[in-house]
Amino acid sequence: MTSSQSISPYPTHLLPPLRPSACRGGRVEARVSENVSRDMVMDGDFAPPLPEGRSTRARQNGVVQPLLTDLYQITMAYAYWKSGKIADNAVFDLYFRKNPFQGEFTIFAGLEECLKFLENFQYSDSDIEYLRKTLPPTIEAEFYTFLRQLTVKDVTVYAIDEGSVVFPRVPLLRVEGPLIVVQLLETTLLTLVNYASLMATNAARYRMAAGRHIQLLEFGLRRAQGPDGGLSASKYSYVGGFDGTSNVLAGKLFNIPVKGTHAHSYVTSFLDMSELRTKTLAHRETGQEHDVLALSSAWRKRLALLLETLENEASDGEMAAMISFAIAFPEGFMALVDTSGLLNFCAVALSLNDLGYRAIGIRIDSGDLAYLSNKARETFAKVAQTYNIPWFEKLSIVASNDINEETILSLNEQGHKIDCFGIGTHLVTCQRQPALGCVYKMVEINGQPRIKLSQDVAKVTMPGRKDAYRLFGADGHALIDLLQRSVESAPKVGEKVLCRHPFQESKRAYVIPTRVEPLYKVYWQGGQVCQPIPALDEVRARVQSSLHTLRQDHKRNLNPTPYKVSVSVDLYSFIHELWLQNAPIGELS
Amino acid sequence: MTSSQSISPYPTHLLPPLRPSACRGGRVEARVSENVSRDMVMDGDFAPPLPEGRSTRARQNGVVQPLLTDLYQITMAYAYWKSGKIADNAVFDLYFRKNPFQGEFTIFAGLEECLKFLENFQYSDSDIEYLRKTLPPTIEAEFYTFLRQLTVKDVTVYAIDEGSVVFPRVPLLRVEGPLIVVQLLETTLLTLVNYASLMATNAARYRMAAGRHIQLLEFGLRRAQGPDGGLSASKYSYVGGFDGTSNVLAGKLFNIPVKGTHAHSYVTSFLDMSELRTKTLAHRETGQEHDVLALSSAWRKRLALLLETLENEASDGEMAAMISFAIAFPEGFMALVDTSGLLNFCAVALSLNDLGYRAIGIRIDSGDLAYLSNKARETFAKVAQTYNIPWFEKLSIVASNDINEETILSLNEQGHKIDCFGIGTHLVTCQRQPALGCVYKMVEINGQPRIKLSQDVAKVTMPGRKDAYRLFGADGHALIDLLQRSVESAPKVGEKVLCRHPFQESKRAYVIPTRVEPLYKVYWQGGQVCQPIPALDEVRARVQSSLHTLRQDHKRNLNPTPYKVSVSVDLYSFIHELWLQNAPIGELS
Repeated sequence: MTSSQSISPYPTHLLPPLRPSACRGGRVEARVSENVSRDMVMDGDFAPPLPEGRSTRARQNGVVQPLLTDLYQITMAYAYWKSGKIADNAVFDLYFRKNPFQGEFTIFAGLEECLKFLENFQYSDSDIEYLRKTLPPTIEAEFYTFLRQLTVKDVTVYAIDEGSVVFPRVPLLRVEGPLIVVQLLETTLLTLVNYASLMATNAARYRMAAGRHIQLLEFGLRRAQGPDGGLSASKYSYVGGFDGTSNVLAGKLFNIPVKGTHAHSYVTSFLDMSELRTKTLAHRETGQEHDVLALSSAWRKRLALLLETLENEASDGEMAAMISFAIAFPEGFMALVDTSGLLNFCAVALSLNDLGYRAIGIRIDSGDLAYLSNKARETFAKVAQTYNIPWFEKLSIVASNDINEETILSLNEQGHKIDCFGIGTHLVTCQRQPALGCVYKMVEINGQPRIKLSQDVAKVTMPGRKDAYRLFGADGHALIDLLQRSVESAPKVGEKVLCRHPFQESKRAYVIPTRVEPLYKVYWQGGQVCQPIPALDEVRARVQSSLHTLRQDHKRNLNPTPYKVSVSVDLYSFIHELWLQNAPIGELS
Repeated sequence: MTSSQSISPYPTHLLPPLRPSACRGGRVEARVSENVSRDMVMDGDFAPPLPEGRSTRARQNGVVQPLLTDLYQITMAYAYWKSGKIADNAVFDLYFRKNPFQGEFTIFAGLEECLKFLENFQYSDSDIEYLRKTLPPTIEAEFYTFLRQLTVKDVTVYAIDEGSVVFPRVPLLRVEGPLIVVQLLETTLLTLVNYASLMATNAARYRMAAGRHIQLLEFGLRRAQGPDGGLSASKYSYVGGFDGTSNVLAGKLFNIPVKGTHAHSYVTSFLDMSELRTKTLAHRETGQEHDVLALSSAWRKRLALLLETLENEASDGEMAAMISFAIAFPEGFMALVDTSGLLNFCAVALSLNDLGYRAIGIRIDSGDLAYLSNKARETFAKVAQTYNIPWFEKLSIVASNDINEETILSLNEQGHKIDCFGIGTHLVTCQRQPALGCVYKMVEINGQPRIKLSQDVAKVTMPGRKDAYRLFGADGHALIDLLQRSVESAPKVGEKVLCRHPFQESKRAYVIPTRVEPLYKVYWQGGQVCQPIPALDEVRARVQSSLHTLRQDHKRNLNPTPYKVSVSVDLYSFIHELWLQNAPIGELS
């Protein structure tokens, strides 16, 4: 017998504490919701007027809360607490070790979500109650009081700007503060950065493969990994360079353009012309009603001759579906066209033209996309020429069948006439590499550097509090990233700086930068966001401008050149002295 | 200049309308939250007492709402509405075409989430407002009124029980009702079923690879695809046969066991013994305080001789970390042990033993897992024998480094002494196949069957309203799944039935079933859930019992035998007649 009841921890955190968010040292955005009571928000009808443009900030998914973490963070917190390490301070670096997709660059994304997480960080009573039931009974009660009162006001987060091109080993975030607190943030920060960055990088790669002038639409919601996986995919593919999504909620939440036409089932729902209950449409200018069915049927006869196809191969159900769709969306007629549907489409589009409307185009979802797009373009050109309707040649051709980066590159080679790709599964699941392996490592505690050694050099950590700079050459391209100890002064424009490989002694290079970009800004301090949070469109623009500074050979799909990440002479010595101190000396026997 | 404001559509849907959910014809669960006002729920402190056992239902993630869909569903809805198809009724099948992971079975999951989605289905005012801004201005205002008032009370959903083993082409859901409404449900239902089923299947495969007696823990939150991807992964890996998760929120929401110890950073935070601020622990029985540091140091000296290792190769910082962890969790001491940590672990575990506590074991997170686990087990055995502490030999060995199904199979071949696997990235991203390709196809409209033809036979749909049966043989194993037209009467036990391949004329078999299981139940009708919703543990148990009915050769990892899905003689003719009617006759010229 099932005995069940609803527990509802979601709502507990859905409405974060609405505290004033004045901020030091930076422009700060007004947040309308802070002036809105919870009741208003909960009323279901809260929809503040949107400002002009697309600068809006969405609230965070309610599942992002302090318990969205690994249990061991909390057991460690207790062990730290129990060991008297409450006043200890630590520095953690969040970084990845390898670029995804066999590429040589990564786009950093997820920062805004990390900051929202910090803004709302607080264990609720029900969280504490759950932990009390779950952790061993030997845990001292005072620990729960400690947790309940825990805040992130003493945490400082340095971060690279969201949307920047980033590279292995250069920390994306440097998180400083009370050891217990910064440790407790680990899993959630990783979750928020890992997939967002992976997705934005994937999207940016698709954008590069498709070129600047092709529209890219994200169609992956149904294949995404969970509902929020779908939302994150829509958001970060837009950041990475996509033009829109089919996901309506993503459109609503993030103010991303939404696109879509109809599915095959729409066509299937019409068997023949007799099912067309509305057949007329008003002329765009005269307003006079015309019979679109009669017009389309007449056009279909004429076109069958022109295009040398058999009229009876065109399905009547499909034509009925297209006519009804054209009547519903006379200004936005775009139709799913299977191998045989071109004749019907052209007939309906020409009828619309008779009534003063311009069709948008077709979507192809099966078959040989290069061949079909070329054939469709030829057909459009022939119609355009025969009937003297120049824009008909420019109708949009959207392709959307199981497309990935390689498909696009291969279509480019074959030659195609596609204007827009709708991309689902491979984009949102990041098929080629479904996870970015960001890690979060302690590099300093109570002012003392820490190094983690490993047989595998790639897993050795770079100790201490570090700053990062990007050095640019005279042609505007990024030359190298340089990590330094935070106590060192920044490299200067026009001054020679020796950049060393962090682990290979012989690899060194002198660089004279024409421009030096410090990569970190303080994004969180004193319990507040300390930088203006850019709108999604600004982050999206930064992706393209940041990629633009990267040499083409780092970005190409096949065998790209690795971009160099180096350390200063000082940091190099620091790492290697600490390494020697920490490595046990073996004895041969 | 960034001008931003918060918009907050999340909360709008977070608290679904709390309407009474009495249900016809089935046991129905009490829902505590329905007696709780919104204010209470929003207060942040709502934590109803849990009943005994683990039967609880969590509220749905607030992002699951009617706008979590593709835009074309809404444009189609308008076109249907505009074409006067408001009263049309349709039947859609939700099914997949191919089992994932090169396997021959799939676990169906996500049904409960689909039902919750239906329970809460309603467009809010802010949804309508958003659509009004987003869709073309030519859309008639009445359509928005229609949408605002739309309900799913006339929809009926037939479904296979969640947790069942299922096969390609057998619909998991049959959704019937007003064409516009059932079309609008497509994307969200697919999103909720696709990843849940993929994840549960993946977990079930790991369970089979590991065998019944190995503990499996899901550790993938940080690498999951978005925060909800992480929650779904935890939930459905538990359903598929895992024993627990590291994800605390999943534990809280779904009442799944949570597990975890400490990360490497805990070890890194201690440099040497001097950092141990608390050194004493009370004896479990006498209550007398003892110096664990002194005990452990003495044990380490003795063990170094016994195990023939050098004491100075063991890190003092690591021992300090282990001692502090043991003091915090004397009843639950489990330590992350890198290649060199075994000596320290044994020393601390023996000190705990002196004080009346039993350690739990170790976690290995790097290196050769087979070798290290064997070495650790030998060490434990030697200690157990030398000091006459039999349980020491049985200490748990957890392994957790980048494990996938193949790693487990390979470790099985090599021979290992691991008791528990902690599995992250590969489990939650379903690396081998990151999406299950469920589709949602119209099979009937207004009582008329619909077929979708395709060059690719796998993409041809099976028309009409169908029922599905599983036929079992005398040995209790499932023999074949049989699809019939809903108008046919069910196959009977002991009566010969001819089962045909749906598309290959020559493939037929007579079956005399010993047991016949009708696969569908009405889960949603009249605006209500119509079956008791099993608790997560019951679904989890069904996965194992359902898999148990499947012959071993269908389940094996390498070259499994396909399980047969067949159609009745009647359905076969029905499909093929309709096919001929719909296929245009070509002309050779």
